Amino acid sequence: MAETSSGRKCEHFDLKEYQFKTNMIPRLSVDDPETNRRISEGLPVIIIDSKLVASALHWDLEYLNENVGDGKFTVYKSSNTKFKYFDERKADDVKDFRKPMESLEIKFSEFVDLIKTVDPKKERVYLQQSLNDTVGKRIVLDFLQFNWNWVTEQQRRNKFGTLTSNLLLIGMEGNITPAHYDEQENFFAQVKGYKRFLLFAPDQFPCLYPYPTFHPCDRQSQVDFDDPDYERFPKFRDVKCLEAVVEPGDVLYIPMYWWHQVESVPNKGYSVSVTFWYKAAPNDKIEYPLKATQKVAMMRNIEKMIHQALNSADEVPEFMQNMVLGRYT
Amino acid sequence: MAETSSGRKCEHFDLKEYQFKTNMIPRLSVDDPETNRRISEGLPVIIIDSKLVASALHWDLEYLNENVGDGKFTVYKSSNTKFKYFDERKADDVKDFRKPMESLEIKFSEFVDLIKTVDPKKERVYLQQSLNDTVGKRIVLDFLQFNWNWVTEQQRRNKFGTLTSNLLLIGMEGNITPAHYDEQENFFAQVKGYKRFLLFAPDQFPCLYPYPTFHPCDRQSQVDFDDPDYERFPKFRDVKCLEAVVEPGDVLYIPMYWWHQVESVPNKGYSVSVTFWYKAAPNDKIEYPLKATQKVAMMRNIEKMIHQALNSADEVPEFMQNMVLGRYT
Ligand SMILES: [Zn+2]
Ligand SMILES: [Zn+2]
Repeated sequence: MAETSSGRKCEHFDLKEYQFKTNMIPRLSVDDPETNRRISEGLPVIIIDSKLVASALHWDLEYLNENVGDGKFTVYKSSNTKFKYFDERKADDVKDFRKPMESLEIKFSEFVDLIKTVDPKKERVYLQQSLNDTVGKRIVLDFLQFNWNWVTEQQRRNKFGTLTSNLLLIGMEGNITPAHYDEQENFFAQVKGYKRFLLFAPDQFPCLYPYPTFHPCDRQSQVDFDDPDYERFPKFRDVKCLEAVVEPGDVLYIPMYWWHQVESVPNKGYSVSVTFWYKAAPNDKIEYPLKATQKVAMMRNIEKMIHQALNSADEVPEFMQNMVLGRYT
Repeated sequence: MAETSSGRKCEHFDLKEYQFKTNMIPRLSVDDPETNRRISEGLPVIIIDSKLVASALHWDLEYLNENVGDGKFTVYKSSNTKFKYFDERKADDVKDFRKPMESLEIKFSEFVDLIKTVDPKKERVYLQQSLNDTVGKRIVLDFLQFNWNWVTEQQRRNKFGTLTSNLLLIGMEGNITPAHYDEQENFFAQVKGYKRFLLFAPDQFPCLYPYPTFHPCDRQSQVDFDDPDYERFPKFRDVKCLEAVVEPGDVLYIPMYWWHQVESVPNKGYSVSVTFWYKAAPNDKIEYPLKATQKVAMMRNIEKMIHQALNSADEVPEFMQNMVLGRYT
């Protein structure tokens, strides 16, 4: 077994290959001063021994099915490996928009039936549901034993806002969440199975060509990583990628505005994860030049403002083009 | 002599030829209902008998030299026919910016010396000075006899704001003010000589490619009409142009945000004009889709806001490109 740059023994993972190179994200101990330094500087890091979800490492389909309760769970269904998120509320603003996946509200037991019976070459499912008060008593106890000490101390140190949700994610092996960024800070805790992350810093925005903000696929890259259209997206050739594979017990810090594609590693069984999403820290004092994250936030606001002022998504592209082409190009 | 489309006997004017076609702007009587209709709809029109500056039709260089007073006048000096305006205050924001003309503050008599002695193949001058209280008594009397009744009635009918200035313009034959738009309403009164106007509606913005707002040449077209760079400015091929030639006594209404190139007609002697600039009417109630003028105002505000937020003109183009290219194109 070879040694990787991050010092971990190289397990054999059946990972997809892309046309860009990647660098590995460091895997560090919770006690390594570098861990806190990276988090405070807004850099991703894998924390191997935080024990954040140690109390949940026995969460498999059977245990969850028995204890997760009778509530409804959001389950996405896709005819291929990709689960491309879209915002239902924006779907009417874009004509000819075709929903890239279906969403179901079903009981956990129905999800278990699906995950066990679907033919993954034809159909796949992905559960993505916030943990709420409909879960059973044993899940509540496991939840209460999360390492809240550590994560709340991180929240305090880094001046994050409130915890907004803990998302329970259960994906079939090979499921892919395409590259996107979120507007919150995220500690991503792996419970069962393996997930591979492709991460891109906020300054890679120009290489990743997110959809217009009015589009249902806002915050996601328009680039098809499997078959990049370099004519339309020439800077994707220059994209700089960081990579991480998380295993049970690992926590990946995904800083706000960092792009991430998430792949449940093939041939390693289903994956269970829990996210800890926090609102952003209040704005730093403004220093120039602005940081990439601040510019991304600015662009989003400008795009939303233009959409609102024109009162029509259809008029936004031409307005943008007229403002910029031949003038700022 | 041929009849023009606007009904005027065709005088022989030595006008420059361009690669785009033009349509003539109507020449109408002050009593023609169409005159007020055009002004109220924000369309340019030549008013032939308003008598707006009838009291000034004797303003020639000799009369002005004797009566205009000892104050200082702004006179621009150019080594070619073009007098391309630039904003001194923005000159430092753009590196390698070369001032396209020189500006002098001189007495009227010095200007008269220059206009009479310079070799127009090597050097040209153009006086552009607001009329102020340093002018002599006879000029004041002429000024008081302008047809304030008519122009003030126009201001009232069209809800224009205050009169901000009356600019006295004295240009050598063949002088050109390149295409630009102003942010005020303008009644342009011709006193002596002939001026040819090329006018473009606000919706021609995409074809005319104004400089970035932070640029000293803000509000002016980047396109060289004599040698258009269709690679950089492809839509200039489609530009729609209106044309007017004004003679002594004519008034041209130039609506706010209408582009205009102004040429003192060659071989017709120097030109004297007086402008009546008014602040814009208060905003209409907002109706969708927005009008071209409203979109231009919006773009200007967005560009200024981005410049201010980035705190650097240098960063604006890349920011604009990243927001738009491959995303809204
Ligand atoms: Zn995400
Ligand atoms: Zn002007």
